[in-house]
Amino acid sequence: MPVRIAFITGNKGKWEEAREALAPLGYEVEQVKLDLPEPQADDLEVVARAKVEAAKRHLPGAFFVDDAGLFVDALKGFPGVYSAYVLKTLGSGGILRLLEGQPNRGARFEAVVGAWHPRKGAHFFRGVCRGTIAPAARDAGHGFGFDPIFIPEGQTATFAELPTVEKNRMSHRGRAMAQFEAWLRENPLR
Amino acid sequence: MPVRIAFITGNKGKWEEAREALAPLGYEVEQVKLDLPEPQADDLEVVARAKVEAAKRHLPGAFFVDDAGLFVDALKGFPGVYSAYVLKTLGSGGILRLLEGQPNRGARFEAVVGAWHPRKGAHFFRGVCRGTIAPAARDAGHGFGFDPIFIPEGQTATFAELPTVEKNRMSHRGRAMAQFEAWLRENPLR
Repeated sequence: MPVRIAFITGNKGKWEEAREALAPLGYEVEQVKLDLPEPQADDLEVVARAKVEAAKRHLPGAFFVDDAGLFVDALKGFPGVYSAYVLKTLGSGGILRLLEGQPNRGARFEAVVGAWHPRKGAHFFRGVCRGTIAPAARDAGHGFGFDPIFIPEGQTATFAELPTVEKNRMSHRGRAMAQFEAWLRENPLR
Repeated sequence: MPVRIAFITGNKGKWEEAREALAPLGYEVEQVKLDLPEPQADDLEVVARAKVEAAKRHLPGAFFVDDAGLFVDALKGFPGVYSAYVLKTLGSGGILRLLEGQPNRGARFEAVVGAWHPRKGAHFFRGVCRGTIAPAARDAGHGFGFDPIFIPEGQTATFAELPTVEKNRMSHRGRAMAQFEAWLRENPLR
């Protein structure tokens, strides 16, 4: 019998990725949609922590949340924790415009997975992926968000041009999830 | 004996404005610095409401908070409730860059004052000032934030070129404060 764990996300793609990642460990990942309050904060872990605290009041068992952002060096970390809002308003085109003529195109994607384990409490796992902002958006139908303008270090393709399985191997979220998986092996839910 | 009311703000300029505005009504405005959690939300009143709720736990008597933002039409309301963060990262220059070649330069400043009255509960007052984004920043030492790039409707000067007393007559914050003052006359604290 697989053990159930809830993933609080409105994003079906993220849920499918997590389901595949945790199935070999004997977990059945259930997608739960909850509108959790997110504080304004400079760090993703502060946001993830608030989401875990709020979700505890709604869910009886184990669950996890995730939060991610694109931090552009030349823009002092913008859009950072507000990436979802900036994607909706300015889009990838806004980031490209803000970097016109800017020689420093360094950036990083960060993700934090916040997990609630009924016996072990709250734990947080951070994944970082360094890279650069592409000169123009390039999309081959993969990925979402700012993926079409982000080239991970050591690659020439953007995240949106890489097959999902390849992207997950190096991505911020893939790295955070890998840490969460390793921790779950040491701290099983059953 | 003047009645005391606390203004929760880290901004000395705002405090001085409020102090002058409420003195004729017999109130002594005290500046209180509290680091209150701000939720991520599309509307300023949601942010102000959360701040009032959190502050109630720290302060025994009457107080008020304020929250403001610049909403640019062509940027789908960006930077909106995240104006403080965007000012810190992109600055006024970022907004000008995002609007290069954009014929629609319409924008509005909004402010919400959230007040806590021990007998009447929480009340919210919204002020709006329509205007346009200037072609370039113009500053005569007045104002703060995005004031150097905002020209209020019916004017040719930016907020940062107008004397404070004149700016307050038409500004979003001035209008929200005027409503708060009118309400305080009807619902005195003593």
